[in-house]
Amino acid sequence: MELTVTQENLARALASASRVASSKTQLPILNNILLRTDGHRLMIAATNLEIATSQLIGAKIINEGAITIPARLITEFVGNLPKTTVTLKVEDNHLHITADGYNSTINGAVADDFPELPTINEKTAVSYAIAPANLKQAITQTILTASGDATRPVLTGVYWHSHDGALYLAATDGYRLSEKRLVETKSDVAAIIPTSTLQEVLRVANDDIAEIEVLFDESQVRFRLNDAEITSRLIDGNFPDYRQLIPATSESAVTVARADFMQIAKVAGLFARESGGSITVTVDADKGLLSLHSVASELGENTSETPATVTADGQVTLNSRYLIEALNVIDSETIIFRFSGKLAPCVLSSDQEKSDYKHIIMPMKS
Amino acid sequence: MELTVTQENLARALASASRVASSKTQLPILNNILLRTDGHRLMIAATNLEIATSQLIGAKIINEGAITIPARLITEFVGNLPKTTVTLKVEDNHLHITADGYNSTINGAVADDFPELPTINEKTAVSYAIAPANLKQAITQTILTASGDATRPVLTGVYWHSHDGALYLAATDGYRLSEKRLVETKSDVAAIIPTSTLQEVLRVANDDIAEIEVLFDESQVRFRLNDAEITSRLIDGNFPDYRQLIPATSESAVTVARADFMQIAKVAGLFARESGGSITVTVDADKGLLSLHSVASELGENTSETPATVTADGQVTLNSRYLIEALNVIDSETIIFRFSGKLAPCVLSSDQEKSDYKHIIMPMKS
Repeated sequence: MELTVTQENLARALASASRVASSKTQLPILNNILLRTDGHRLMIAATNLEIATSQLIGAKIINEGAITIPARLITEFVGNLPKTTVTLKVEDNHLHITADGYNSTINGAVADDFPELPTINEKTAVSYAIAPANLKQAITQTILTASGDATRPVLTGVYWHSHDGALYLAATDGYRLSEKRLVETKSDVAAIIPTSTLQEVLRVANDDIAEIEVLFDESQVRFRLNDAEITSRLIDGNFPDYRQLIPATSESAVTVARADFMQIAKVAGLFARESGGSITVTVDADKGLLSLHSVASELGENTSETPATVTADGQVTLNSRYLIEALNVIDSETIIFRFSGKLAPCVLSSDQEKSDYKHIIMPMKS
Repeated sequence: MELTVTQENLARALASASRVASSKTQLPILNNILLRTDGHRLMIAATNLEIATSQLIGAKIINEGAITIPARLITEFVGNLPKTTVTLKVEDNHLHITADGYNSTINGAVADDFPELPTINEKTAVSYAIAPANLKQAITQTILTASGDATRPVLTGVYWHSHDGALYLAATDGYRLSEKRLVETKSDVAAIIPTSTLQEVLRVANDDIAEIEVLFDESQVRFRLNDAEITSRLIDGNFPDYRQLIPATSESAVTVARADFMQIAKVAGLFARESGGSITVTVDADKGLLSLHSVASELGENTSETPATVTADGQVTLNSRYLIEALNVIDSETIIFRFSGKLAPCVLSSDQEKSDYKHIIMPMKS
């Protein structure tokens, strides 16, 4: 193999591959990145057997070939080179990398030992084309409520599914739940995507990409972002019927500026640290006030309030971190906070008609 | 005590005090911040018995008084308040803090239990007035070569001393040494200031301050930055006679662009990680080249080079981190790197005539 590429293209593709290449593996070769010529391009790929990533970059190919190289050293080395043309040349199992003033050799392993990259039958796959900004927002708004508890694997991913003519994303950890309506669709899908896969999509997605294609087969999902592909296994199992958990009506509806609610929640959260994050929300319809109360056991206590439009008086106790994280991902200046006393789930959403996002938080016992 | 202050002034003073207030202390009161009215101002102070900080801020005093308050909660609380007027009111040992929409109580302790703040006899003290930018640069350029090894306390600080009509700062950890000529002076001083004190000065010093006053008595130093004071004990003992370690002449002098030297040093450092940071510098007078070579044992090797003006060929092996850190604090586009073979100390300095800063690095065995 012998070829030249630009430092910028090579550095970007290596950075993405090295995030997937795993150093915590029984199989040392998975710690390597695969470089292989492909027509007039260079393919850069890595896999941890759960996620595989591959990227094609433009290259001037002098001799075809392939090699695998330890991920960290080559990624950091190329990342620190000046923006110039980089020459890659394989001799035996050594990769020689030269660029203006730099001359390195990195010892690799034969490409034949590298696991086969996953394939998807694109003709039978269900596919969606989604604008990067919309996809990134939908992932950001749902991934935070996925569970970190590996004992219930189905809850550790985000549930992509068709319902009533639309593609929905949903995730829940049992304490909170988020649901996003993403695009209209006539195709049927029901698939649970691991959060680590979605995090990698968030890192690679950028607004230079016109559309991101998402393809599902029976057991895998592939995200295609221009010349990059991220392919991942799906999580086996059935996602719980979460829709029954979303309250259809609520006793109190509170309309409040998101920034103000966020600021008083942060302050209340400081005092709540010593009491498991517990803050009590009180709303007063006559005074038009939303107030938060929290107690720092021996240290002191806090009450913070902000003006709000309130339909009915009420009180509920929430975890401050859950509240702050929910406010953080709702994309509107004004939000609606609905609840029904101390036991029923609370619903946060934007104030827009036909809001496409709901964030549900279970109350704490107060 | 009852008074009003602006959120911005209070937040800034608390942030500084809370960095000094210690949570790792046998004396719980040292974890508190002292608030005390002082004429038309509010004094905010903290001490860990090594460093004391105090700051006066403008206040509208309604009733005089004092209290001490746990540092972390009040600092984070006030830091998160909107930019408005804040009212502080003490009742028993409780501090009530109110601001637009916020109402908190923090439990404190009587001010009488707080240790007395250190005093300096300003009439007999040796004093210097230094522009903040110059002081910050001098501290940044020397603090990095101080030792972290508590078994030789004198090396854990920066040595401020008068010599030949100037005030010098110097620090060494035995592997490297830095020396800065700061200002001309007729006063005599020889004092070792702990690095933690200087780090706090770096954080508080800003260019809104016209001059920073530095006052020394027998056992203490005080930095006065407008209405803020940082007072610290000095480190006991005699600083070694470091001047004899600085080579008067060198066999090779290399003039090189700092940014280029930095970039090849970073790349060489990546390969040097597995060999204790060891990189070999080779300079060639005929070719006009400075090159760095490093070996990553089983992973590979690297040679990087950059144009340089070289007086005589030579080779020396250095720790890459020391080299990168030295290049990072020398403030000129072009630097001069001097050395005499594989065993003698190397000297880095700016290329300016009468350069006021020298950075010495001992070679590694190669």
